[in-house]
Amino acid sequence: MENNLNHRVLNWTPVPFNKVNVTDDFWLPRIATLKNVTIPACLTQCEKTGRISNFARAGGLETGQHQGMYYDDSDVYKVLEGAAYTLMHERDPILEKEIDRIIGLIAAAQETDGYLSTYYTLASPDFKWTDMEKHEMYNGGHLIEAAVAYYEATGKREMLGVACKLADHYLSMFGPSKRHWVEGHQGIELALVKLYHITGEAKYVSFAQWLLEERGHGHGSGAIWDKEDWGPAYCQDDVPVKDIEKVTGHAVRAMYLYAGMADVARATGEEGYLDALLRVWAHTVERNMYVTGGIGPSRHNEGFTADYDLPNDTAYCETCASIGMALWNHRMNLLFGDAKYADIVEQELYNGVLAGISLSGDRFFYVNPLASEGNHHRVEWFHTSCCPTNLARFLPSIGGYQFAVTDKGIVCNQYVAGKADLQLSDGFAVQIESAADYPWEGNIRLKLRPQRERIFPLLLRIPGWCRGFQVCVNGDRIHPDAYRLEKGYLVLERNWGVGDAVELRLEEPVQLVRAKAEVESDRGRFAVRRGPILYCLEQADNPILKYDDYAMPADMTWSIAPGSDSLEGAYLLTAHDRRGHTFRLIPYYAWDNRSPGFMQVWVKELESGALYKQ
Amino acid sequence: MENNLNHRVLNWTPVPFNKVNVTDDFWLPRIATLKNVTIPACLTQCEKTGRISNFARAGGLETGQHQGMYYDDSDVYKVLEGAAYTLMHERDPILEKEIDRIIGLIAAAQETDGYLSTYYTLASPDFKWTDMEKHEMYNGGHLIEAAVAYYEATGKREMLGVACKLADHYLSMFGPSKRHWVEGHQGIELALVKLYHITGEAKYVSFAQWLLEERGHGHGSGAIWDKEDWGPAYCQDDVPVKDIEKVTGHAVRAMYLYAGMADVARATGEEGYLDALLRVWAHTVERNMYVTGGIGPSRHNEGFTADYDLPNDTAYCETCASIGMALWNHRMNLLFGDAKYADIVEQELYNGVLAGISLSGDRFFYVNPLASEGNHHRVEWFHTSCCPTNLARFLPSIGGYQFAVTDKGIVCNQYVAGKADLQLSDGFAVQIESAADYPWEGNIRLKLRPQRERIFPLLLRIPGWCRGFQVCVNGDRIHPDAYRLEKGYLVLERNWGVGDAVELRLEEPVQLVRAKAEVESDRGRFAVRRGPILYCLEQADNPILKYDDYAMPADMTWSIAPGSDSLEGAYLLTAHDRRGHTFRLIPYYAWDNRSPGFMQVWVKELESGALYKQ
Repeated sequence: MENNLNHRVLNWTPVPFNKVNVTDDFWLPRIATLKNVTIPACLTQCEKTGRISNFARAGGLETGQHQGMYYDDSDVYKVLEGAAYTLMHERDPILEKEIDRIIGLIAAAQETDGYLSTYYTLASPDFKWTDMEKHEMYNGGHLIEAAVAYYEATGKREMLGVACKLADHYLSMFGPSKRHWVEGHQGIELALVKLYHITGEAKYVSFAQWLLEERGHGHGSGAIWDKEDWGPAYCQDDVPVKDIEKVTGHAVRAMYLYAGMADVARATGEEGYLDALLRVWAHTVERNMYVTGGIGPSRHNEGFTADYDLPNDTAYCETCASIGMALWNHRMNLLFGDAKYADIVEQELYNGVLAGISLSGDRFFYVNPLASEGNHHRVEWFHTSCCPTNLARFLPSIGGYQFAVTDKGIVCNQYVAGKADLQLSDGFAVQIESAADYPWEGNIRLKLRPQRERIFPLLLRIPGWCRGFQVCVNGDRIHPDAYRLEKGYLVLERNWGVGDAVELRLEEPVQLVRAKAEVESDRGRFAVRRGPILYCLEQADNPILKYDDYAMPADMTWSIAPGSDSLEGAYLLTAHDRRGHTFRLIPYYAWDNRSPGFMQVWVKELESGALYKQ
Repeated sequence: MENNLNHRVLNWTPVPFNKVNVTDDFWLPRIATLKNVTIPACLTQCEKTGRISNFARAGGLETGQHQGMYYDDSDVYKVLEGAAYTLMHERDPILEKEIDRIIGLIAAAQETDGYLSTYYTLASPDFKWTDMEKHEMYNGGHLIEAAVAYYEATGKREMLGVACKLADHYLSMFGPSKRHWVEGHQGIELALVKLYHITGEAKYVSFAQWLLEERGHGHGSGAIWDKEDWGPAYCQDDVPVKDIEKVTGHAVRAMYLYAGMADVARATGEEGYLDALLRVWAHTVERNMYVTGGIGPSRHNEGFTADYDLPNDTAYCETCASIGMALWNHRMNLLFGDAKYADIVEQELYNGVLAGISLSGDRFFYVNPLASEGNHHRVEWFHTSCCPTNLARFLPSIGGYQFAVTDKGIVCNQYVAGKADLQLSDGFAVQIESAADYPWEGNIRLKLRPQRERIFPLLLRIPGWCRGFQVCVNGDRIHPDAYRLEKGYLVLERNWGVGDAVELRLEEPVQLVRAKAEVESDRGRFAVRRGPILYCLEQADNPILKYDDYAMPADMTWSIAPGSDSLEGAYLLTAHDRRGHTFRLIPYYAWDNRSPGFMQVWVKELESGALYKQ
């Protein structure tokens, strides 16, 4: 397929995480927990709740009615996708046997014409494709993603066959001069682009583009559209996608839509999406994003309300929406080659997304408020359990966000310790190894092993939170005149030899963050950040404080040290003010892992007499 | 003399700089330049301008009239004081010979009754003690300080004898039941306390206290008092010192007054000064201090105007006033044991004071604006040349601000690399050695060698600009529960053994500083600071910019690297914004050392769309 993206886009190539060997002290234990605890726990829940049986029943392998909700198939697919990712880190015959068994059930559940959605097959076979809100293609999208992942991890094709058959079924029914379809919950679009990349079949990306173009023309119908206070904006069907100005409606759907638009733009060179993506990105991050990276303040529509409406205690901030932000921003970064999108990926990774899962790996938040009086806790599973299964598939793929390849060089987007075997666009091989105590310390050490000496640019993301950095190559400090900063990247273009070492020192001070005055909920307050980690104050460390009944001056001194083992080596911040009060803050992602109690991100600021304030 | 200071005061003991062997990469070359360039240059100027001849003429050793101003004697004393300080670093027979020669002239100029002020002796012998503005005791104060310094440096008593004879002359004429005297330009008070400490003669500190108490009762008279728009407030004679609420009048006089009050309080236990000092300190630093540490915005009165009146381009900010702030705050620190005063000492050392002298050591600012269109430059000498000679005596004493001793332990106030032999209050000996690349890097390494193992507190100042720190002892990170923070100090109380090593990592990020909204001149602007160093933008590095005709966004990325040799290894900050503009900033103290051009500290802030701002 011809790519004729205009000059505004760079269209970098991602380095898939199976080319990256993560050795990171922060992420490696978490990936192990995902494999050993989270994925087995999710599989058990899928089994217990009938999500897996639904496939067996739809396939006629056992008897019984459909259990649960019409979108429950997707949870099984997402766990399989996550399991596939862990297999890319390390194969596991026992896990594969279980997956193969489930794939067998899924294949059995697929109807002869390719249709696959156990709810309709079992409960309502005569009403397929009658309500665009019923997640039929949403389920299919997750099937495709899981199939691609499992094929990449194992080379096994059975599930990929199911996926292609299902996609071909869609193509047979919908499309130009066929039926209209506005999928109520997006996700299918980006899945189809993945299917295109793995199969080389351009029809899948064309269909993804057709699905995008279906929106905003009044073709949508079903439960959502009929609800007066939701309507088409709820699922971003209010305007044609090229005309999108503002983020609206259900947060996860919006994110998956924009991710799909970016994917289609990258794959097809569709320029019409670029302006819409830039506009809606600015509208999202400049007016509608929490400092955690969380989005979608309202429980009512699981989504957006009015600009700057960012309440803390009632913040909805669905975990899946943060994952969606990461997926979208990752694609924006590849499309436009700007570090500010990778900044958001990082913000979600270490805050908005990571808070969704307990340190133990078996308890989850669906809703992620920025303040709690003490009654909000992670649980093992939900009736609608998209978040646990989304975490199970998203987090093991962390390595995939680390590097990218430009037309000439290499991009370091995330500072996760690991080793990657990359190929530049002309096939030139470069091994890159990164070491860091990130996120706790900002010293990044990179080692390059190009196949031979060569001049190429190495792009190092200078995170948006980072005000200052120093950089050395092979121990020599590099003067600012010898490099450039472009779109948030430090660009080191030089003749790289085997074993060349780069040391990047990112300043990681304790930072007090204040919101724009328009954000009423945060007025007179600050949040505390260090590096990419947003902090919060939790009752467990501050037993004498009462919820929101305290204030902190801005000129406190923070001592920085790893905490007790209960928070897995996380650096805690202990502040002392001049009245003799002490406050201890922990990373936001780590809250609600100890004794229950209140939590706050935005703390009241005690006005000081200081003439100058940083 | 009995010391019965109340519980609010700690009354630490300073460690004089002759007990401290400075090895600092930042300060050592500057002290060498002071000795090799500045002091010889000042002596030459004193010679050329008749300042030294005035003594010879007053002593009848040569003929001729008084040259220059009535306060010019003080310049000679200040250079001798500075020269004495350099001799404490390293004796120098040639320099001593020259000083001894000048001391001979000074001794000759002293009248039989002890009187010494060459202006009156030569030009107006019948009008001694008729105009309290004529700096007779101000001159004497500097004589005393020089005498004490030279005695401490060399053990030679001649000048000290002159000083005591002069002080005794004051005592014979003024005091309870004798004549009133309100010295127009303070300085004599703190000098008398020095004389008390070196001689043990309580009469000197009593007289200093009497002089303080003379103020604010209508006893003052002379040129200043008669001027309608100056009046008694100009020299802080408007209210009794215990009733001082606000900083007023001539900045240097105010600083010397408060320093004298702190000294007398420390020496006598005079509690009545404490509240006044605390009040006027807050009024000074919270409403009337520039971000450079500079004070006194107005050229008209060389002093203070209205609260928050801090214009940048017309800022007067006399170098001597910054030195005065350092002298006063050093004493406040010793008196109250609070790091916030040592913060100001540091702020002055690296900014307000240091800007006063060229890197070459032979050119000086009297006036230190925070913005210049390009026509403000250092010169070799002034008609009123207090600033060069004040720099010559202040800067070589840097080591004296480094350590103090509490009733039980040791205080590290300034992080200058060096080695000191201290004695705790009971005589227990501790050698302490500090190493640091300060101010450029915030890693401080301290080594302790107590005479034997002992439990005592080590107080490490956590600078006010520093938001976060980490601390290790003998390589082990210390958990915040194992220390406390008190009045800005990290207090490490433990059993210290020989060779124990402390590593303190102070975060030194690039910081954007904003002024309180009340400061009209700085509204919509920020200043840039890193560690204790305030930065400025100078045309030499930014040839395409025009004075105040540019704006910088807050979310820039700063690369940090030493500059070219022309700025002696100073770290420069190079910022890149997303429009492709580059800005380079240099330390404020280093401005006007290269090609002339504009300079600005407070730069206009380009508003960004950012929802969250640090």
